[in-house]
Amino acid sequence: MPVTARGSATGLSGACEPSAGGIVVSFERMNSVLEIDTGNHVAIVQPGVTLADLDLRTAEVGLTYPVSPGELSASLGGNVATNAGGMRAVRYGVTRNQVLGLEAVLPSGEVIRTGGKLAKASTGYDLTQLIIGSEGTLAVVTEATLRLYPRPPHQATVLAPFHTVDEVARAVPKVVNSGVAPLILEYLDGFTMAAITHSQDLDLGIPAQVKEKAQAYLLVMLESGHAQRLDEDIEQLGNLLTELGSIDLYVLPGPSARRLVEAREKAFWTSKAAGAHDIVDTVVPRAAIPEFLSAAADIAKRHSSLVFGCGHAGDGNVHLAVFQADEAVRSALLRELFEACMKLGGLISGEHGIGRSKKSYFLQLTDPATIELMRRVKTAFDPDGILNPGVLLGS
Amino acid sequence: MPVTARGSATGLSGACEPSAGGIVVSFERMNSVLEIDTGNHVAIVQPGVTLADLDLRTAEVGLTYPVSPGELSASLGGNVATNAGGMRAVRYGVTRNQVLGLEAVLPSGEVIRTGGKLAKASTGYDLTQLIIGSEGTLAVVTEATLRLYPRPPHQATVLAPFHTVDEVARAVPKVVNSGVAPLILEYLDGFTMAAITHSQDLDLGIPAQVKEKAQAYLLVMLESGHAQRLDEDIEQLGNLLTELGSIDLYVLPGPSARRLVEAREKAFWTSKAAGAHDIVDTVVPRAAIPEFLSAAADIAKRHSSLVFGCGHAGDGNVHLAVFQADEAVRSALLRELFEACMKLGGLISGEHGIGRSKKSYFLQLTDPATIELMRRVKTAFDPDGILNPGVLLGS
Repeated sequence: MPVTARGSATGLSGACEPSAGGIVVSFERMNSVLEIDTGNHVAIVQPGVTLADLDLRTAEVGLTYPVSPGELSASLGGNVATNAGGMRAVRYGVTRNQVLGLEAVLPSGEVIRTGGKLAKASTGYDLTQLIIGSEGTLAVVTEATLRLYPRPPHQATVLAPFHTVDEVARAVPKVVNSGVAPLILEYLDGFTMAAITHSQDLDLGIPAQVKEKAQAYLLVMLESGHAQRLDEDIEQLGNLLTELGSIDLYVLPGPSARRLVEAREKAFWTSKAAGAHDIVDTVVPRAAIPEFLSAAADIAKRHSSLVFGCGHAGDGNVHLAVFQADEAVRSALLRELFEACMKLGGLISGEHGIGRSKKSYFLQLTDPATIELMRRVKTAFDPDGILNPGVLLGS
Repeated sequence: MPVTARGSATGLSGACEPSAGGIVVSFERMNSVLEIDTGNHVAIVQPGVTLADLDLRTAEVGLTYPVSPGELSASLGGNVATNAGGMRAVRYGVTRNQVLGLEAVLPSGEVIRTGGKLAKASTGYDLTQLIIGSEGTLAVVTEATLRLYPRPPHQATVLAPFHTVDEVARAVPKVVNSGVAPLILEYLDGFTMAAITHSQDLDLGIPAQVKEKAQAYLLVMLESGHAQRLDEDIEQLGNLLTELGSIDLYVLPGPSARRLVEAREKAFWTSKAAGAHDIVDTVVPRAAIPEFLSAAADIAKRHSSLVFGCGHAGDGNVHLAVFQADEAVRSALLRELFEACMKLGGLISGEHGIGRSKKSYFLQLTDPATIELMRRVKTAFDPDGILNPGVLLGS
């Protein structure tokens, strides 16, 4: 009997779609924040707790759980299963970097506990890390111990239009390496920026003559515990971006900044509404973004398709919306995109996971020794193959 | 034929001791830094590269690999196998947090590549994380891709004597949570401080009347890209430590600070030279250090033994030197120490690993479902059990 664990079902690769004839274990009502431990900066949550709930609870004590995959109704259980990322990963890392311990039920019914409120451990294989991102195929997580951070009081958002996507992509490693430690470092191409500001009815006050010239934008958010340090960092960042060729610079007021970030988080839905047929979230080495975007443009052109994008530039995580109605052409295009990304040292997914939607590409493009090893690991946890059999490695 | 991989053989739990009749694969001469990639802030190294070599190469381009387990002749391959930690883990995390990808040889002879120069990935099980810390029992690592960081130009070191170990332990979470983000946050009990300063002939200029009162010390190092911010942080830290009851405060000049940190790194050897019969590196939740140290003192007393220590206080990683010549008594004492630590939510080792020396305790004190699961994972990689069979899970 196939068993599929399900949190808020907000994932983007179909990892919580059940198998025919199987059952769904929904965690929607197993949603208590069990503990906020201010001494150890740790939260213990049940899998159904949403990011929105956790944010309210941590805010009360001046702390924050920093993973922000763009959908606050997402559950922590789902975040663990898919190793959720999001815009703040450039500063804080992804879910994998925040989970210190788990309680999980094995397919045998045995309950194990891994890790704990511990900053480090070298005591046997790291089962916590193995279960994170396994998309419900190894064990069912019933509790997670999460790292919390001080909630810095000061934030500022800078938007920099550039003449070309290439210029933006080349600016990214220089911003990351400058030491200003951005909280958010996103790129948006001109099409995506126009689409999300239009769909959200958002006026950022950018003059028409700048918009006309700007083929791409860099969105940078900084945070700090000290107002003065933040001002200094903005100045340093501004100087750097100007050197790197930005057409102009806008320090966005709080409400506009929040609305732009929200609009960016909804880019997936905006693309879908605009008729995109698929969405990918390839990841490449940060400095290889220009080369990858150029390869993606060539591939799209060759297949008479449109590919637009935005992405977590600081992480090399390039999100592309693919417009191509013909399934066979689209599938060939996607395969070429993934091959191009892997040729640059990248992988198919930075944060959405493989699930059902990218499984055939994953199985075709990953070397067979690795797939066979993953299958043996799967069998070590789940000899009868009952957990989420259609997902990731499933046939 | 048992196969044991070996780097510089500086580990503290015997994970690179070969099995009788087996062979050792030494990586001493496979020691090239293959690439320092300044755009992506990444180094690619062969396993025999030492931390000292890597530090020289990264310094040339203003970057740093931050893991510093106290022995610069340690190899990166060994660091990956044991998930090495060290003093700077409170700021940068341990080896696990720096390794982005691996090349590894499976017992079958198949070569796999995991991860890459990638800040994030959600593309199948995280084999990188599974191999890190597996102490040579799953695969033999032949190449590692490591994260590098900007090398901050400014450092300062503060030493604060306290009346009791308990006061020091209670100060730790408050310093971590204050936002000053220490690079190093160590505690040393009075005995350990006296031993290491004496053995290194190190005069820190602490007046005799302060030394007499000080039963414990907190050692805090800060770093920053900005000299002025560092001064501000020292002042904030100083005020906090004074509030928390420190007897006095010493901002150590560079040479003294370096010598004290080196002496602290050699605490293991100092303890050994002083006649310690065993060393443990239990890890507990940071805020549980006072309770654990009190339990440890009780256990030592009950067994008429001496237990002294120092530790990576910011990580909850408590290093204790155990003086008890009788093997049976010592073994009972160690078991009780580990039980006390696990009762507080801790684990047997924070960074030294299990290896051969802590294996019997690990197998006795870990729940059987977890051990059996780890054994099945071991079999998934190594069905014939040829890799380092006497270590970790081996019988």
